[in-house]
Amino acid sequence: MDLTTGSAATKAEMVMRFVRQRISGRTLTPGAKLPSVRSLSGTLSVSTSTVVDAYERLVAEGAIVSRPGSGFYVANQAAPFSPAEAGPKLDRAVDPFWISRQSLESSEDSLKPGCGWLPPSWLPEEAMRKSLRVLSRAEPSSLADYGTPLGLYPLRRLISRRMGERGIEASPEEIMLTESGTQAIDLLCRFLIEPGDTVLVDDPCYFNFHALLRAHRAKIVGVPYTANGPDLAAFAAIVSEHRPRLYITNSAIHNPTGAVLSPVTAHRVLKIAEEFDLTIVEDDIFADFETVAAPRLAAFDGLERVIHIGSFSKTLSAAARCGFIAARPDWIEGLTDLKIATSFAGGRMTEEVVHAALSDGSYRKHLDTLRARLSKAMAEVTERLAAIGIEPVLRPQSGMFLWCRLPGETDAAEVARACLQKQIVLAPGNAFSLSQSAKNCMRFNVSQTLDPRIFETLKGVLKA
Amino acid sequence: MDLTTGSAATKAEMVMRFVRQRISGRTLTPGAKLPSVRSLSGTLSVSTSTVVDAYERLVAEGAIVSRPGSGFYVANQAAPFSPAEAGPKLDRAVDPFWISRQSLESSEDSLKPGCGWLPPSWLPEEAMRKSLRVLSRAEPSSLADYGTPLGLYPLRRLISRRMGERGIEASPEEIMLTESGTQAIDLLCRFLIEPGDTVLVDDPCYFNFHALLRAHRAKIVGVPYTANGPDLAAFAAIVSEHRPRLYITNSAIHNPTGAVLSPVTAHRVLKIAEEFDLTIVEDDIFADFETVAAPRLAAFDGLERVIHIGSFSKTLSAAARCGFIAARPDWIEGLTDLKIATSFAGGRMTEEVVHAALSDGSYRKHLDTLRARLSKAMAEVTERLAAIGIEPVLRPQSGMFLWCRLPGETDAAEVARACLQKQIVLAPGNAFSLSQSAKNCMRFNVSQTLDPRIFETLKGVLKA
Repeated sequence: MDLTTGSAATKAEMVMRFVRQRISGRTLTPGAKLPSVRSLSGTLSVSTSTVVDAYERLVAEGAIVSRPGSGFYVANQAAPFSPAEAGPKLDRAVDPFWISRQSLESSEDSLKPGCGWLPPSWLPEEAMRKSLRVLSRAEPSSLADYGTPLGLYPLRRLISRRMGERGIEASPEEIMLTESGTQAIDLLCRFLIEPGDTVLVDDPCYFNFHALLRAHRAKIVGVPYTANGPDLAAFAAIVSEHRPRLYITNSAIHNPTGAVLSPVTAHRVLKIAEEFDLTIVEDDIFADFETVAAPRLAAFDGLERVIHIGSFSKTLSAAARCGFIAARPDWIEGLTDLKIATSFAGGRMTEEVVHAALSDGSYRKHLDTLRARLSKAMAEVTERLAAIGIEPVLRPQSGMFLWCRLPGETDAAEVARACLQKQIVLAPGNAFSLSQSAKNCMRFNVSQTLDPRIFETLKGVLKA
Repeated sequence: MDLTTGSAATKAEMVMRFVRQRISGRTLTPGAKLPSVRSLSGTLSVSTSTVVDAYERLVAEGAIVSRPGSGFYVANQAAPFSPAEAGPKLDRAVDPFWISRQSLESSEDSLKPGCGWLPPSWLPEEAMRKSLRVLSRAEPSSLADYGTPLGLYPLRRLISRRMGERGIEASPEEIMLTESGTQAIDLLCRFLIEPGDTVLVDDPCYFNFHALLRAHRAKIVGVPYTANGPDLAAFAAIVSEHRPRLYITNSAIHNPTGAVLSPVTAHRVLKIAEEFDLTIVEDDIFADFETVAAPRLAAFDGLERVIHIGSFSKTLSAAARCGFIAARPDWIEGLTDLKIATSFAGGRMTEEVVHAALSDGSYRKHLDTLRARLSKAMAEVTERLAAIGIEPVLRPQSGMFLWCRLPGETDAAEVARACLQKQIVLAPGNAFSLSQSAKNCMRFNVSQTLDPRIFETLKGVLKA
């Protein structure tokens, strides 16, 4: 690298790139001390003020931190700076946080075919309003007191019954409420894995599994996902070779592909899990989208080595955060202590609202309407995407996700970056793929892909 | 049963009761088909729409299931009904979880002088009811959508202003909302410490800090806490010897002692922290109890190495979980990614309710009343405890905690175990003490110590 020519600003940028590359290449790991200003200025043959300038800009970006009197260190969570309320940063690397932050931070005017939830108008607004009014008249302790460690009993009983309908036997005492489906998996990772343990995920899988597992310093291994579940031969080989502690997967409707586990695959996966003492976390948050019930690993296994989790963010409300874990009683006991230590108690008020909304007879009707609406949107979006050369990898039975292949060798991340300039948030394939083998795939949420501007913009970007 | 009079809602409830009785009386067994809507409407002389309404609500409850095109059936998987909450285990060791679980799991009839929160009747019930009604009329996205990663902007602005009143400058962009004060500390531990890192806490301190830090596999070191803050000589020696990464402490009102940091101690603590590159987490959750403002480390330090956290569980509602972290922008950025990875988004609905309740002009009036009431209770409980030989270690200026010494060599854990048999939950001293040097201390929450039975029972137990 030639750092000896060019303007001061350019030189500082080169120093910044030099440091950034060492951070991304893990030569400098989080927490590591950077070379002193003097030493780096010598190494790179630039002035000390250039290094100071570069370090200060890297501090502003959040890539490194300054500890006065001690020096500069790689930030624990190296991440490019983005002004919080000013909207997402456009040039952020397409990492697991890319879609999350674009979707969560972009303005309400943005179109979001890449996001993982329904538009508010598709959710049961009136049931939520009614439930809030019910809670506004509840007894004082529902408004003021901490919840119990396991969470609101009537809601756990209701979840137990719903699970029963899907063939999973779990008593309310085997169910613990959490703040969300994500928090459920997070607690389970804390409970079951040590830093350095290997965790198996589907490839592709929900991108936040990667981010979550990295936060736990797990070694992540991916298994190719097919139209019927994980590729069995690969699954057997990987489990035998890597001996993962945990396998995190979706049941019912797979994210992002919309695939459904077949009974024979479920059975084989469990047999292999048993042979190698593998624990499985089955994330069932899309359960209520199903039109035909798919097999559940937890139903076959009886919560022996399968832990079943879910939430209501997708079909009821994402504003009322509430998830659950169903697991063996001895695990629930340990998880309860961990929940107390790390969040003390659950959100009783939210649990009350969610319970009221789910107990309302209207919820089932809402689901019928929702499924019909999603099915119609799925057909429509499939057709409109096909017209611009974007074809589904498979046609999902139900749900909101359509996993597609872009024409030719198109790089989905490039398309996503270009569309973001036009306020359209997309979900490029490699964000879901540990092996980075989904470069020309894209996940579309059909409920958020009905605006004609999306297809016009995509068409233009694909042409260019 | 006369079903022919009354409102539609009442009639549907009667139909529901009719069906439920037949299920519980085993006239209708699991899997049995229910009468058709038409037939039951004839039998009971109600409209078919009343029966449909009742059946749908029974489906929502999980008592029956609908099989489209076939009819309604008694659920196969009727979850075994069990009383709302099994009580806590009496024989659990007095570890950091002892008080948490006793307090959270015990029945509502129990007396809880050991718990860490106010009775519901001391909290602003009407403000919460009103806020829920306000939310029930909010725009759809407040009811349905995920919140932004940092959390509701108006609430962060309000927190920023409140912090300003205490001399702490933090813009809304330097504030991130969390699910609770506990979750705030948990996220910070994940962000700042590695397993094996040393963390300094006060001795005594809030018992859950021990549990939380053990979950992070931190090496915990304690510093004796005095009436003015940590013992400075010990603090300097310990920091120099153990080089802790983090010091977690309370500002304003110390838990459990009720002590208040003096300005000179605050200044010295910060100087030592700077010398040894120590980061401080200042937990300010009792801020709103203060009658005279104590110094805040974050105010002196300007969020350089102090991270300030808080919540509203103590003075507004523990049912609406919401806390916050105020920290340097580069740390907030990394914390945001970590929050997304581990819980995806905050509870928007709860944030809206908390914001509405705090913005309500009545909140300040509530605090005035509350402080007066606590002050009165403090005097009364101090006197009544003194009458049975229990003396305060110090007399707090404000707050709800009174840290006392039991007469002679009495073991507080023994007293707590004996009182638990009589449904009185106490907080024995050693749960707060890393060095286990508070064996004959006990923390009383004066708002929960007004029932005469508590003193009678304590007197009896102390005699025995």
